[in-house]
Amino acid sequence: MPLPIAITMGDAAGIGPEIIARAYLEQPQQMRGCFVAGDVGAMRRAAALFCGPDGPALPVARISAAAEVNQVPVRCLPVLQVGASQSLPQWGRLSRAAGECAGACVFWAADSALRGEVAAIVTAPLNKAALAGTGSAYADYAGHTEMLQARAAQFLGCSAAQLPVRMMLCNDELRTVLVSVHLSLRDAIAAVTMENVLQTVMLTHISLAKWLGRVPRIAVAGLNPHAGEGGRFGREEIEIISPALELARAQGCDVSGPWPPDTIFMRARQRPGVPAQFDAVVAMYHDQGLIPVKYLGLEHGVNVTLGLPLVRTSPDHGTAFDIAGTAVASASSLLKALQTARDLLIS
Amino acid sequence: MPLPIAITMGDAAGIGPEIIARAYLEQPQQMRGCFVAGDVGAMRRAAALFCGPDGPALPVARISAAAEVNQVPVRCLPVLQVGASQSLPQWGRLSRAAGECAGACVFWAADSALRGEVAAIVTAPLNKAALAGTGSAYADYAGHTEMLQARAAQFLGCSAAQLPVRMMLCNDELRTVLVSVHLSLRDAIAAVTMENVLQTVMLTHISLAKWLGRVPRIAVAGLNPHAGEGGRFGREEIEIISPALELARAQGCDVSGPWPPDTIFMRARQRPGVPAQFDAVVAMYHDQGLIPVKYLGLEHGVNVTLGLPLVRTSPDHGTAFDIAGTAVASASSLLKALQTARDLLIS
Repeated sequence: MPLPIAITMGDAAGIGPEIIARAYLEQPQQMRGCFVAGDVGAMRRAAALFCGPDGPALPVARISAAAEVNQVPVRCLPVLQVGASQSLPQWGRLSRAAGECAGACVFWAADSALRGEVAAIVTAPLNKAALAGTGSAYADYAGHTEMLQARAAQFLGCSAAQLPVRMMLCNDELRTVLVSVHLSLRDAIAAVTMENVLQTVMLTHISLAKWLGRVPRIAVAGLNPHAGEGGRFGREEIEIISPALELARAQGCDVSGPWPPDTIFMRARQRPGVPAQFDAVVAMYHDQGLIPVKYLGLEHGVNVTLGLPLVRTSPDHGTAFDIAGTAVASASSLLKALQTARDLLIS
Repeated sequence: MPLPIAITMGDAAGIGPEIIARAYLEQPQQMRGCFVAGDVGAMRRAAALFCGPDGPALPVARISAAAEVNQVPVRCLPVLQVGASQSLPQWGRLSRAAGECAGACVFWAADSALRGEVAAIVTAPLNKAALAGTGSAYADYAGHTEMLQARAAQFLGCSAAQLPVRMMLCNDELRTVLVSVHLSLRDAIAAVTMENVLQTVMLTHISLAKWLGRVPRIAVAGLNPHAGEGGRFGREEIEIISPALELARAQGCDVSGPWPPDTIFMRARQRPGVPAQFDAVVAMYHDQGLIPVKYLGLEHGVNVTLGLPLVRTSPDHGTAFDIAGTAVASASSLLKALQTARDLLIS
């Protein structure tokens, strides 16, 4: 029997609980072996959104340990209560308590994964403002990635800075890994250092080699238009990126570039009848990588954190406070995130 | 009888001549009213690429004035010889003479358009290195846009700096207009000024209002991830872009933003059954706008120069020296550029 997979509930005022409930209703077989780390009351409220007079019933079963998940029947939603039961926040309203609960669920799931009690974590969206407003320990973290990084570093006995992590975004067509994330474009240029580029390539190599079972073909985008055109507009390709790729090659990576950013993503696109030329593209900054991943639509995007000693994936969308509680949000990105976590575990 | 449209031949060592010949062979009706401003010998060589023992014949007719185009029968390629006949360059080899001839064709076509002898210019690709290597007057120009800008400014009696132009890239799904083009990313950030952003929005507004026959809906991308998230990472949105958009609104533009760059392009995408939310996106730098335009493939991309007192479009690809002379290059982007020029003229 494989280890269970924990799905963190996310912010109870957002769409996290309802997309989880929807996934259990629409794809009960795919959800086998999963449980929610969250609040039983919040999950019951979300399940009830789908249970009108003609709707299907989705019973919520409270479990007290991850291992109990296999005793819960299919078409039933197992929830492990993290902390005390919560009073329910209003849908779509910032709530300090909901932020605190969401943070506690992530810490709980990270610790369980690090101890080897769960196989992987899939995180439903939390709200950064709610997290920052709690006044609790979670206020120090910008989001999931930083929380998981800190928890893993503590477990390993190192500092967070000693545990470099990177964000990979993927959908059915494209995988892209980002050198930096939430920095101004000016600061993102400054973050294009040999160390950061090399780390990004190596983390991509290690993760995809495991995932694909072979040496992955990694393309690296340049920073400047036309990758600087031989230094005519920008020298980062010559002075920073190319030397970093040389070092990566010396360590066995199949890495090419720096390529002109405007055409490398289309070359890495996997389409029916048009095989991708690369397994992933390393992007030099947030929007360079996210514009192509998101261009075809958000529904199936998955976020994978590379560099952690645990498997963590998440849907590529936020709490969507504007539609929370209306049962219209799609579960497809969450289901895709779960499938990606399973793919990463099997490999 | 509408005025003729001039197609400049581009660099004779590249794919320009053969994609023009191919367009005449494959879509003779669409090419009616067009002629090539170029070299008769180079166009004959290109036409002969398609005329094997079993291939169709494509006669080249030499004309001496634009107005003669209507006397040339369909399925015949009219060429106006610009300057003296050229010795033919080797396919795919940099040639000073080919660069000079390509430059002369662009100047000739610009002057004809400015004098009102041709309705529009469609430019086949020239090679910037060949242009720079000529030692002639063309060596000062980075490419088509700068040549046309200089020629138009001279015609209008102003300096090139007084005639701001912008590049619009469009395909069947998306139109994007760039604040800057061939600058390093660092310099492109510096080019995000109130004046440049406002000019870009106004040129987009004027051109699309004419094209679409109504006030266009313009979306403006931010510079930083998440459009700076309220100043958390980057203040250009607050200090530069938003004030520029206020000024544009005061002049009657329907302009919104600055939007998060990673999701605004997908919202402006026109798909069957999913109407676009905007008619164009103003992008803050080269790759921000070109990554989404190119992501779906290059074949149908069209480049339109905004701000000139003439209509100019071009295919969104280069001379492709690696395949020149092999008759494999597609004419679809050239045909699309011609169609776009016609659309701009009708409106």
